[in-house]
Amino acid sequence: MSTTRFLTGITTTGVPHLGNFVGSIRPSVAASLRPGVQSFYFLADYHALIKCEDPARIQRSTLEIAASWLAAGLDPERVTFYRQSDIPEIPELTWLLTCVTGKGLLNRAHAYKAAGDRNTAAGREADDGVTAGLFMYPLLMGADILLFKAHQVPVGRDQVQHIEMARAMATSFNHLYGAHFVLPEAAVDAHVATLPGLDGRKMSKSYDNTIPLFSSRAQLQKLIAAIRTDSRPPGEPKDTEGSALFEIYRAFAGPEETGALRRQYAEGIAWGDAKQQLLDRVDQAIAPMRAQYQALIDRPERIEQTLLAGAERARALATPFLRELRRSVGLRSLAPSTGASVAKAEKAQKAPKAALPAFKQYREADGRFYFKLVAADGRLLLQSTGFDAPREAGQAIRQLQQDAAALQALAPRLVPVDGVDRAEVATALQDLADAAMAE
Amino acid sequence: MSTTRFLTGITTTGVPHLGNFVGSIRPSVAASLRPGVQSFYFLADYHALIKCEDPARIQRSTLEIAASWLAAGLDPERVTFYRQSDIPEIPELTWLLTCVTGKGLLNRAHAYKAAGDRNTAAGREADDGVTAGLFMYPLLMGADILLFKAHQVPVGRDQVQHIEMARAMATSFNHLYGAHFVLPEAAVDAHVATLPGLDGRKMSKSYDNTIPLFSSRAQLQKLIAAIRTDSRPPGEPKDTEGSALFEIYRAFAGPEETGALRRQYAEGIAWGDAKQQLLDRVDQAIAPMRAQYQALIDRPERIEQTLLAGAERARALATPFLRELRRSVGLRSLAPSTGASVAKAEKAQKAPKAALPAFKQYREADGRFYFKLVAADGRLLLQSTGFDAPREAGQAIRQLQQDAAALQALAPRLVPVDGVDRAEVATALQDLADAAMAE
Repeated sequence: MSTTRFLTGITTTGVPHLGNFVGSIRPSVAASLRPGVQSFYFLADYHALIKCEDPARIQRSTLEIAASWLAAGLDPERVTFYRQSDIPEIPELTWLLTCVTGKGLLNRAHAYKAAGDRNTAAGREADDGVTAGLFMYPLLMGADILLFKAHQVPVGRDQVQHIEMARAMATSFNHLYGAHFVLPEAAVDAHVATLPGLDGRKMSKSYDNTIPLFSSRAQLQKLIAAIRTDSRPPGEPKDTEGSALFEIYRAFAGPEETGALRRQYAEGIAWGDAKQQLLDRVDQAIAPMRAQYQALIDRPERIEQTLLAGAERARALATPFLRELRRSVGLRSLAPSTGASVAKAEKAQKAPKAALPAFKQYREADGRFYFKLVAADGRLLLQSTGFDAPREAGQAIRQLQQDAAALQALAPRLVPVDGVDRAEVATALQDLADAAMAE
Repeated sequence: MSTTRFLTGITTTGVPHLGNFVGSIRPSVAASLRPGVQSFYFLADYHALIKCEDPARIQRSTLEIAASWLAAGLDPERVTFYRQSDIPEIPELTWLLTCVTGKGLLNRAHAYKAAGDRNTAAGREADDGVTAGLFMYPLLMGADILLFKAHQVPVGRDQVQHIEMARAMATSFNHLYGAHFVLPEAAVDAHVATLPGLDGRKMSKSYDNTIPLFSSRAQLQKLIAAIRTDSRPPGEPKDTEGSALFEIYRAFAGPEETGALRRQYAEGIAWGDAKQQLLDRVDQAIAPMRAQYQALIDRPERIEQTLLAGAERARALATPFLRELRRSVGLRSLAPSTGASVAKAEKAQKAPKAALPAFKQYREADGRFYFKLVAADGRLLLQSTGFDAPREAGQAIRQLQQDAAALQALAPRLVPVDGVDRAEVATALQDLADAAMAE
């Protein structure tokens, strides 16, 4: 239980560029290899639909982004790598969260407010051209995160609000229906590397100043030739400060190489020579990945298989968890083994329960309501404090039946029992859950 | 193709009462038996989550409403009777529609605006206590309707706007991605019977003046005794006009019986005697259904089976249709038999296509772009008019490949071909679709 679960989504609308590689792909792949970390990466194609109405582009981008991450070393055996639209539990959870989320929360989302402000400034109605998708996407993102009980979500500063919104949704749901969700945290890396683009501004699709990650060497040469420099002639010393060329070089080179180029700048290297060095350095770093990328792109059916296998792993978690959530809100089977007619079902099949631990609910002389969990051999495993109403005690029991993680959330309502450790309790709860499942 | 598809949802939050029976259940069951009608009835439990936070109540209400409709004669062999939350395609389609719907459309929904007006009148913020669920539910309802290509949606006047909104969503999607959706119409029955409640106002949960449909005879007697009457003594003539008692009687009696009670009113029947007649008449109508209802409620696992069988039927339509919709927006397999790499795949497997009809796209001397569909034996099956751009012609072909229903939508762009009827064209399109599926 000491592993930390990270979750990262990548919207499938563009072609990855060097800035994405340095700022996101490379550090993410490295992070996925750290011990004690469980990583989830997904291709956010439901999100892509919000801003992209071009089906071929979404499909193409999904392929290219998946191939880029795999070529960059993401190991689909080690991490859970899946495509959002392969997980039907995500839109379903989106709806469950929609019902527990105040509209006011969505009104305050930065991206939505910015769109409204732009409209108002231009003299248009605030919601002019704003789709329900833009307004609702914090809920979709909440479902992405909460479905997999992510502890940490690596994001830029501009995304922190979305993680706070996901926490608010989780808190609201947990309050109404019991402690089901983990409250996620934003993991903001203050040192995240941003790369300058061809024109010296941050490399970004929206500035049209990018170098595609998997350009051929010839394309790379052409683009690097276009990097803006000042007009100092060869022989005149150059500033590394503010030099996009130098910054890009540094992002791919070790400290020694960087030091060497810095000296050459001071000695007045010709821009043409500096660009040649950059080309060689970047190409050296990219070339092996590029070959891998091309091999992947040429066999899209293998990427498809990889994503489907990832979806299967993701759903092995998502499907039972959503079943638990559905039960908690009242979307339940009508058959008597669950819900309303539990008592009847128990009468019908007493025998198989004999060897199982059991919850007992009762009232004490103090007028309050208690429960305990008793092992099959009669030993006390769990003892609650007193509840004001039987309903409350019942709810706590249900939480424990549905999710052993509730043990932690309910700790304040449980009295320590001598000689019983938490592992034994968790095992007993699991036995009960397995038995319920088998019914 | 001449059948009309009707779709009706029932929110699972309450206990059906006599007003629901007379105004909705009875006429719906009768309508489902008409020839040329294909009916869909669903238990709207995702909708119930918007206003009900009590899980047990949702589960109980689902059971009771399902049992009520079945006891009232709904034949699950004849109609498609399912539970909304058994259809994962519904929340998924909700998201697809969310991305093509303007937020402004939702802003104008009556139910949302009314909540805002109440808040504003009370000096609160407009969105105070308004959940995203209330705001979004027209999108969920749009998905309910559009997923099953319903032609007619029977609704009260207050719901007409929601059908118009579903049409707007369908139009927007069809415009962006091709003619996939049928545009639904609201079927407003001007003569829909409304029943007065115990206090003379419309029978409604919100007035707490209802008579539960499956009350026991004893309960029925008690409730009927509470129907408000005036204080005229026995012997004095009574008004049928404005008499809740008379109206309820009339809803269950034939014209002759109603005429007889009208005469008794004129002759000064005692209120106690009139109530006895009402009790007898209603009980006579309800008693057989009540027995059936009780038998159903006692075997919830059979209702569960019925609903699961209904969901299977519903999903036999929903799953392939959603697959088509996913493809159209760009949520596609990356494997080469679909999408980007079609050309490559076709190269790899030319043989099996030999016996199939084929689309041909070409340019005429007039500079415009055309297509035709040619049978495996070379006969012309379809001939288009000229398009301004090859992209437009290509889009029309894709529509026809994805859905034979597009034949109707595209009729204005097609030239009649002598000796070829629509059934033959539809069959050819189906052959193509089957072959594509088998790849």
